[in-house]
Amino acid sequence: MTDHSAFTYVCQNAQQAALLHSSADALEWDERTNMPVSAGDYRADQVSYLRGLAHQRRTEQKYRDYLEELFQKIDPVKEQDHTSITIMQLHRDLQRDIKLSTALVERSAKLTVKGQQVWDTARKNNCFDHFKSILSEIVSLKREIGDRLREETERTRYEALIDEYEPEATVKQIDELFSQLRRPLVALIKEVQASGNRPKRELFQQALPVSIQRQLSRDVAVAIGFDFNRGRLDETSHPFCTTLGPHDCRILTRYDPQDLGTGLFGTMHEAGHGMYEQGLNTEAFGLPAGSYCSLGIHESQSRMWENQVGRSQSFWKWITPKLKDLFPDQYAQATAEELYFAANDVYPSLIRVEADEATYNLHIIIRYDIEKKLIEGSLDVNEVQDEWNARYHADLGVEVDHERNGVLQDVHWSAGLFGYFPTYTIGNLIAAQLFYSAQETIPALDQKISEGSFDELLQWTRDTVHQHGRSLNSEQIVQKSTGMLLSPEYLVQYLREKLESLYEL
Amino acid sequence: MTDHSAFTYVCQNAQQAALLHSSADALEWDERTNMPVSAGDYRADQVSYLRGLAHQRRTEQKYRDYLEELFQKIDPVKEQDHTSITIMQLHRDLQRDIKLSTALVERSAKLTVKGQQVWDTARKNNCFDHFKSILSEIVSLKREIGDRLREETERTRYEALIDEYEPEATVKQIDELFSQLRRPLVALIKEVQASGNRPKRELFQQALPVSIQRQLSRDVAVAIGFDFNRGRLDETSHPFCTTLGPHDCRILTRYDPQDLGTGLFGTMHEAGHGMYEQGLNTEAFGLPAGSYCSLGIHESQSRMWENQVGRSQSFWKWITPKLKDLFPDQYAQATAEELYFAANDVYPSLIRVEADEATYNLHIIIRYDIEKKLIEGSLDVNEVQDEWNARYHADLGVEVDHERNGVLQDVHWSAGLFGYFPTYTIGNLIAAQLFYSAQETIPALDQKISEGSFDELLQWTRDTVHQHGRSLNSEQIVQKSTGMLLSPEYLVQYLREKLESLYEL
Repeated sequence: MTDHSAFTYVCQNAQQAALLHSSADALEWDERTNMPVSAGDYRADQVSYLRGLAHQRRTEQKYRDYLEELFQKIDPVKEQDHTSITIMQLHRDLQRDIKLSTALVERSAKLTVKGQQVWDTARKNNCFDHFKSILSEIVSLKREIGDRLREETERTRYEALIDEYEPEATVKQIDELFSQLRRPLVALIKEVQASGNRPKRELFQQALPVSIQRQLSRDVAVAIGFDFNRGRLDETSHPFCTTLGPHDCRILTRYDPQDLGTGLFGTMHEAGHGMYEQGLNTEAFGLPAGSYCSLGIHESQSRMWENQVGRSQSFWKWITPKLKDLFPDQYAQATAEELYFAANDVYPSLIRVEADEATYNLHIIIRYDIEKKLIEGSLDVNEVQDEWNARYHADLGVEVDHERNGVLQDVHWSAGLFGYFPTYTIGNLIAAQLFYSAQETIPALDQKISEGSFDELLQWTRDTVHQHGRSLNSEQIVQKSTGMLLSPEYLVQYLREKLESLYEL
Repeated sequence: MTDHSAFTYVCQNAQQAALLHSSADALEWDERTNMPVSAGDYRADQVSYLRGLAHQRRTEQKYRDYLEELFQKIDPVKEQDHTSITIMQLHRDLQRDIKLSTALVERSAKLTVKGQQVWDTARKNNCFDHFKSILSEIVSLKREIGDRLREETERTRYEALIDEYEPEATVKQIDELFSQLRRPLVALIKEVQASGNRPKRELFQQALPVSIQRQLSRDVAVAIGFDFNRGRLDETSHPFCTTLGPHDCRILTRYDPQDLGTGLFGTMHEAGHGMYEQGLNTEAFGLPAGSYCSLGIHESQSRMWENQVGRSQSFWKWITPKLKDLFPDQYAQATAEELYFAANDVYPSLIRVEADEATYNLHIIIRYDIEKKLIEGSLDVNEVQDEWNARYHADLGVEVDHERNGVLQDVHWSAGLFGYFPTYTIGNLIAAQLFYSAQETIPALDQKISEGSFDELLQWTRDTVHQHGRSLNSEQIVQKSTGMLLSPEYLVQYLREKLESLYEL
């Protein structure tokens, strides 16, 4: 077998695994949008069977042999071409995959599909006790998986889990970034609170018919560039974005009939994820060049559209007349400035996904600290709720009123996504840094946003981020597109400038 | 390996194939309800890959060896228990499956997913020419498949295809049944036309808001017994029913804002299919005991609810007050008798799925004759349209105005479903015969229907039909539940009695 045909075989195998994973993703999308209530058990069987087959495919002996052979021939000193980058990335994945048995992958898939079902009920019933037992099982399983994945590496158990979402990230780096961020954020939030100034919160929090909010969200998603010929926008209890094929990206949002921000910012956030997926190389679907780089990079794309664009003064210049058209009763008297201020209503609260940009990262730091301890074994599932409530009291100064507004608010742990939360704040840091560069590069970007012209910004992200897929790593993407290493100072400065002006600090 | 563990292995293997097929079915359901327009090619790849894997599983050597061994041990003279029936049925499937290669199964799945996409566009554009080329490909493929399947059998090529839908049925039997049915039907339709009597067609054909029709359909589906905890009702361009798991049956209907019958009867039809699926043994999902018996039996369940119930005088006694509540503007003055008459508006028309009970079977006979010739090779794809139009002129006395109302109206051929159409008329015959027995068995059934009490009828079908799955064949089910062999006379008599009274023949 020639190198060429070995490479073809390897790619075909990876793309067949992607056929299986994307089919399982479609079943999971369906589960969270359409599936009848009694169908959960069999759905878990289907998903775990497909994920198990994908794992078999990605670890079969012939594939391993070819990939190893191709990998050994790469000259690490030479500059790498497309083929060798693909081989290196697939080889990297293989080193993870072979540490897990197919049985373990199936068990994990089944347990986490069930976990989400139990969490959903527990959240509806506002009862953490109902969720505890399966959460314990999930934590045990993830500890076991972490232990396997860390073998032959320098990583801790939790780091080995993070690696799936943010390749190469270390706890040391994250701890450092987070502590550099935390101090100035806390100071800034205190200043805002001390200022005594407040936006008209009632502009966002008032009766707004969901049918019209739905229209607004769709219009905004189209305007910023989400392609509905290659995607959909639906509703669910916990918004997300999933990709079922190279031309099939599904974003999901939710609406609060008493709040403008939930649906609007939720949609912009998911559309940001969606546009990243739609900007990947479709020919390489299922291969590293056609896959997202890391969850931090992914989140940077969602947060940039949600925050740097969606909570900007320019954006509110553009959208205010549209709001007045759609909701004449509610917004006839409102000004763009008032709405812009209301979109940046900074105050400590209980719910992460509805938090403002400044306090948001404090929510993440709490989760990061808790899950790190949970996985490393210094915290027990029975202690999670007390720890959660105590940290919200200490860090944000708020008291958890209901379990669904506290420890039950996020789907992640029920889905086994330990190591995922820190990527949200990493994404926020990257978003601020990228947007700073975009403003430097694109002439009169703010002006263009205020005119509803978003295409140059989208194209800039296509060029600097999307087109690379996993061919560059997160660090390389940040450095190439911003000329700098990742630093918290862009986010801090961006927030300080905005809030100083809005709150007259 | 003991017989017991061989049997366990065989069943497990069949149920894993069912995990794959039901996942592919979920992807196809999504394709016809939700999928973005550009996602079709990859979806075809996913579905064909999963179907190919299922075929591999169902033909793998170990499975074949075990199944053959178990099959050889069955004593054909003894009365068969559950285990041996399962073995015999799986063995029967295997004889079909091994005649096809996995590559052929994948090619067929991909071509027919594409075929449906092309058909959908061609139908929208009213352009048969656009569909011809892929139809030719599909016909060639089905000829090839038919030739392979008929090997080592006495069957013709077309019979070998029918066998997938109506096991053991022969062209000779079907020809006989159809010709026995055709003569009295044509005579009856002529009498109806000659009577000069007509219902108030405008009662059905008037402006009826779709949102309220949707509510009506859902209410009726709940009332007759479709379980929404284990199923859904959605909308699509070509109604169907599909089962994605033992507790996940999806029915799809469509609404015409100018016609009551399309949505209402369409929903009752699909709910009938759905209730059959929901009545199968859930523990045996993916095994013969938990699978439907034949498409003729399946169709008997849909047609019984649509026609014997939905177009009965008793049903209209029950539903008329509900219609008056939901559509006061339209039905304040209408009587149950008038609506019952309008529900039985017999006249030759172009569209099969909207045809009345009497002319419906003439539509089927046309399709049956054409597809038999197409597959056997005595008719070419280029001649299909002329043949279609000529037959509609000759048999029904109507002229095809648009291709979408003619040869492009049905999805079946685009999906490769040759041999499927005759099962519709077989289903009509079975429905009439079953309902005759139900009326004999259930005291005051008509009275119960007029009071909206449908549960005894549903239970009777559960007992006589649903619970058996494929453990009995179609002939056995008909004979056991009606005491007779299948005969067209029940349908003819049922129609003659109803129409004589309505049209004063």
